[in-house]
Amino acid sequence: MDELRAFNIRRVTSAGTERVTDQTAVEEPLAIVVKHWQKDAAVTTNLAVTMRTPGHEKEQAAGLLLAEGVIRGLGDVTEIRTLGSEPSNEVLVQLAPGVDFEAWRLARNGFVSSSCGVCGKRSMEAMRQDLPAVGADEFRVAADVIHGLPAALRARQPAFGETGGLHAAALVTEGGEIEAAFEDIGRHNALDKLLGWALLNGRVPARERIVFMSSRGSFELAQKAAMAGVAVLATVGGPSSLAIETARALQMTLVGFVRNQRFNVYAGEWRIDS
Amino acid sequence: MDELRAFNIRRVTSAGTERVTDQTAVEEPLAIVVKHWQKDAAVTTNLAVTMRTPGHEKEQAAGLLLAEGVIRGLGDVTEIRTLGSEPSNEVLVQLAPGVDFEAWRLARNGFVSSSCGVCGKRSMEAMRQDLPAVGADEFRVAADVIHGLPAALRARQPAFGETGGLHAAALVTEGGEIEAAFEDIGRHNALDKLLGWALLNGRVPARERIVFMSSRGSFELAQKAAMAGVAVLATVGGPSSLAIETARALQMTLVGFVRNQRFNVYAGEWRIDS
Repeated sequence: MDELRAFNIRRVTSAGTERVTDQTAVEEPLAIVVKHWQKDAAVTTNLAVTMRTPGHEKEQAAGLLLAEGVIRGLGDVTEIRTLGSEPSNEVLVQLAPGVDFEAWRLARNGFVSSSCGVCGKRSMEAMRQDLPAVGADEFRVAADVIHGLPAALRARQPAFGETGGLHAAALVTEGGEIEAAFEDIGRHNALDKLLGWALLNGRVPARERIVFMSSRGSFELAQKAAMAGVAVLATVGGPSSLAIETARALQMTLVGFVRNQRFNVYAGEWRIDS
Repeated sequence: MDELRAFNIRRVTSAGTERVTDQTAVEEPLAIVVKHWQKDAAVTTNLAVTMRTPGHEKEQAAGLLLAEGVIRGLGDVTEIRTLGSEPSNEVLVQLAPGVDFEAWRLARNGFVSSSCGVCGKRSMEAMRQDLPAVGADEFRVAADVIHGLPAALRARQPAFGETGGLHAAALVTEGGEIEAAFEDIGRHNALDKLLGWALLNGRVPARERIVFMSSRGSFELAQKAAMAGVAVLATVGGPSSLAIETARALQMTLVGFVRNQRFNVYAGEWRIDS
């Protein structure tokens, strides 16, 4: 499995020590390169280098560009491909002629990162990105579906069980079925891969989907989910204050501490039928 | 406590629902501003905006600048102060006249982030920062000291117990005494605050100290620890492949899965007496 690498290590217990082989989550850099149009000339820009677990590079690039507001839909992209030999640590996204990458870059100061979507914003003001509100809608989720998420995700996340070192993000239907799930050493990467998959498979805006994550809920995750139109974000861990405040402002449903037949609803509780 | 904020939420269990007050880890932006000298003129640069838990802004700024290679020691800084009224979300670091900030910025492309130290490096090559090797030394740690770290940290980390949402980083002596510990919603911030405290209190390079963290061990954390001269990095969670490879290349000792009287030694095992 690409996500794991074996290391020869020493295990120490109170009973003594032994030499063992340990399966460890792989972390490697990925360069995301954007080819865009500037006055009829094609320009190539190295957009970001992010540390991630190899695999699903095209989904990750598409998801990151969506979550950061570079692209709004599939119509803004003409091609996504990895560069060099496989496994590749470089992915190229060719933007459609109408996409004003320079305007985006000026607004965002030219940098993004999968682990920190506010990198490159040089002032507090610039950080208040125009996030689209989810708004009121008819989408409702039964409490039993939320209760069932951890077991459903575990069944889809083999590597995590072995290493304890990978986060997972899953796209879940109203009925509790996992449509897609991605693992990564970084929770932001896992979400980028998932949102990129959703974009490439016609699920964006994901208004009638739950995004379920094995991690805590940060501002970043709420921000990324909002950019993909996700109505319900649920996490195994707890949310941050800013994630709650952001979700409430956007009318997104935010659920945390989903474990052992319990969960907390931090925002948008009208979508949860219990 | 500044680290926690109360929210009125709904708790759902299989037995029913109730409205409760939940204590949540605070996440807010911090702007780090650098004042530096360029041809005898003082220039002010907004270096980074990072999402963090409020508190210890001066330590965080000092630690981030040390970990990112902007400064090498206290002599490179003439003043660190928060701006505006307290609690402040902006901190200013005035660099000494001899510090060539522009050269650093060119090399790093002008951006850093507490949650992603490789942001702003526009190519894979630029990412391979010159990290100082810890090298062989006489520092040794008894296995019992490692076994005792989780209990020692829990005793110093009150907020984590309430929210499950804060990471902690601690500076530990050879004998197992915790000299300092900092909490933050981001593990990288917690380490920046700790390394900043160490710098401001004459503990850098921290060759004869253990850094113990409640999180997993990423490349970022190993890189930051290396910049502060830390010989032993131990974490409650597991390390990534790149953290192991980096620690082995630098002759740093890397310990993971420190829990329940067990731990794994991934690099530099000669420093562990067991």
